[in-house]
Amino acid sequence: MGIRHTRVVDGLTAATPFVGPEALERRSGSKIELRLGANESPFGPSPQAVAAMQAKTEIAQFYGDPEGVLLRRRLSELLSVPAENIVLGAGIDELLGQACRLVVEPDDVVVTTLGSYPTFDYGAIGCGARILRVPYLHESVDVSGLLNAAAESKAKLIYVANPDNPSGSWLEPRVIQQLIENLPSGCLLLLDEAYVEFAPSALPLDVESPSVIRVRTFSKAHGMAGLRIAYAVSHSYHCMGLNKIRFHFAVNSVALAGALASLNAPEHVEHVVHETKLGRQRMAVRFAALGFRSLPSHTNFLTVDIGSRTRAEAILERLLSLGVFIRKPGLPPLDTCIRVTVGRVEEQDAFFRAFEQVLRETEHAR
Amino acid sequence: MGIRHTRVVDGLTAATPFVGPEALERRSGSKIELRLGANESPFGPSPQAVAAMQAKTEIAQFYGDPEGVLLRRRLSELLSVPAENIVLGAGIDELLGQACRLVVEPDDVVVTTLGSYPTFDYGAIGCGARILRVPYLHESVDVSGLLNAAAESKAKLIYVANPDNPSGSWLEPRVIQQLIENLPSGCLLLLDEAYVEFAPSALPLDVESPSVIRVRTFSKAHGMAGLRIAYAVSHSYHCMGLNKIRFHFAVNSVALAGALASLNAPEHVEHVVHETKLGRQRMAVRFAALGFRSLPSHTNFLTVDIGSRTRAEAILERLLSLGVFIRKPGLPPLDTCIRVTVGRVEEQDAFFRAFEQVLRETEHAR
Repeated sequence: MGIRHTRVVDGLTAATPFVGPEALERRSGSKIELRLGANESPFGPSPQAVAAMQAKTEIAQFYGDPEGVLLRRRLSELLSVPAENIVLGAGIDELLGQACRLVVEPDDVVVTTLGSYPTFDYGAIGCGARILRVPYLHESVDVSGLLNAAAESKAKLIYVANPDNPSGSWLEPRVIQQLIENLPSGCLLLLDEAYVEFAPSALPLDVESPSVIRVRTFSKAHGMAGLRIAYAVSHSYHCMGLNKIRFHFAVNSVALAGALASLNAPEHVEHVVHETKLGRQRMAVRFAALGFRSLPSHTNFLTVDIGSRTRAEAILERLLSLGVFIRKPGLPPLDTCIRVTVGRVEEQDAFFRAFEQVLRETEHAR
Repeated sequence: MGIRHTRVVDGLTAATPFVGPEALERRSGSKIELRLGANESPFGPSPQAVAAMQAKTEIAQFYGDPEGVLLRRRLSELLSVPAENIVLGAGIDELLGQACRLVVEPDDVVVTTLGSYPTFDYGAIGCGARILRVPYLHESVDVSGLLNAAAESKAKLIYVANPDNPSGSWLEPRVIQQLIENLPSGCLLLLDEAYVEFAPSALPLDVESPSVIRVRTFSKAHGMAGLRIAYAVSHSYHCMGLNKIRFHFAVNSVALAGALASLNAPEHVEHVVHETKLGRQRMAVRFAALGFRSLPSHTNFLTVDIGSRTRAEAILERLLSLGVFIRKPGLPPLDTCIRVTVGRVEEQDAFFRAFEQVLRETEHAR
């Protein structure tokens, strides 16, 4: 037939950013009882969000509003930015991919942190980008390293997750501000704030600046990862650009209703954030008591140094066989770590029961 | 700052394929009571699908299976094609866009029918395609015209909706087979079967052929348009290609559960199709009694020739002011038509009450 995919697509490998827990279950044959590997909120969505979503399922035949006006208006009020500067997407993953499509032509360079959120890389590679990866410095994003790499390579885009995944580290607003001020000419900052609710603070939103696209989600603190809804906040040039290429009906009607209800019941997110911060401390203390150092976390997960990549991998595997799903960073310097979602007290207890059992079994792998 | 979007994105206009009924409400100030403009199933989803979806909203914090294995396995059984040859997407819109990304480089040519489903055009233009549009022939897709245009232009792709929207027309399986056999070398057929359940039959699926990507949806007969879930069936080369660029988590967990439940309760879809076919006939008779010819429909909508573009537009506007949302084809030869979703008997009656009132008011616009 002679039908060929584009040069970019044919050059891609079939690798996916994440193997889902369902696939792990199918491979391992063990049922996952405790999902602490994808930073899904064990607190779930708010009851108000559940009620709003259930009502929408009964009229599932109707398309959601492609402009998501009610939600964008509410976000506009809460964030004090015009609704025109907010663009919805089916999860941050979609927005990262579309942001790459905005500015990346084949063979353009983009810069990210080696071992940071891989779905950015996936989106960029899908546009034919060449990716420069700057290693973590002291287990945190290396701002100077990113800027230098971008300047030398004439990069179109720098990706920063803040707070970062999987390190859990966080850059203070003044550092992000410096990063923005020092961007090389023609280079966009794609700032992924999936975990922003769990951080001490955030740089104020500034939609006058064409240098930054910020993305936030209902997947984490709002407990709606399954529903796929997130948003970008940016300068009107980028929002208009996203509106030219996004899938207008990609955000489903149930998610739109749930997200709006969740915004209107902020006490749920406040509770989640409060409990998560307590849980983070509590888990760090328990890891320390077992001899393991936790990295400072500003997210809803804890990254814990096991001291050996081999042992960290063995722990992951054994936990899976016990029905406990966690993940681990794959690349140095964090590859000796495991990453565990901070659950409610009951999930924390269940995790440590399994973890302590596994520790005894993997003693030899030290 | 000097940040510029890509040549393709900067060259795009901000036009969106569809203005949603919510936007029409905001513009017109009148509340829509009867949504018959987007071919949303007035029968809604099956009770089994609603129950499955509501259960999932309670655990909305969990990501859906990015591989959608349970749903793809069930589709595999029902369609008798391997699950590996099925790729899920967040609605046909996403799949059309991703299919374009597979094969379209900037300035490549794609061929479609003038006035057919505009979201294909949107996806193709977003990849930088030049679009050749072949007019309808006798109010149906002009297969020879598409093939000739593709051959002359060395097109990468031909888009055909079968049944077609907005004409409602349908090409028999042998005609689709001839189309496939006569594709120019290197040209892919993107076959949109959104309305396949309402058609008399369909060409058997053949995943050995690398010439075709077929897409189907849960939006129409299954009554789940709001949930955003559809699938592509194709040769493994194309499925692997889609898996390299699709958003792996784009399909939400509620949609996955609802679609599976809907497949497992086929009596609902059978009822919807049966009632829709009866409703189509019933509405055509009523339109005829009022002096209007309906185009033969193989979908869940009826396209009706009003005889004058001006009057068709006036009817659309007046119906909107009465809270009745329909659409009309915008381009010749169908621009003298209106397009009405076939509802249940009660929606049909409500529509004709409003329509007859509007006819009296628009008499002068003949």
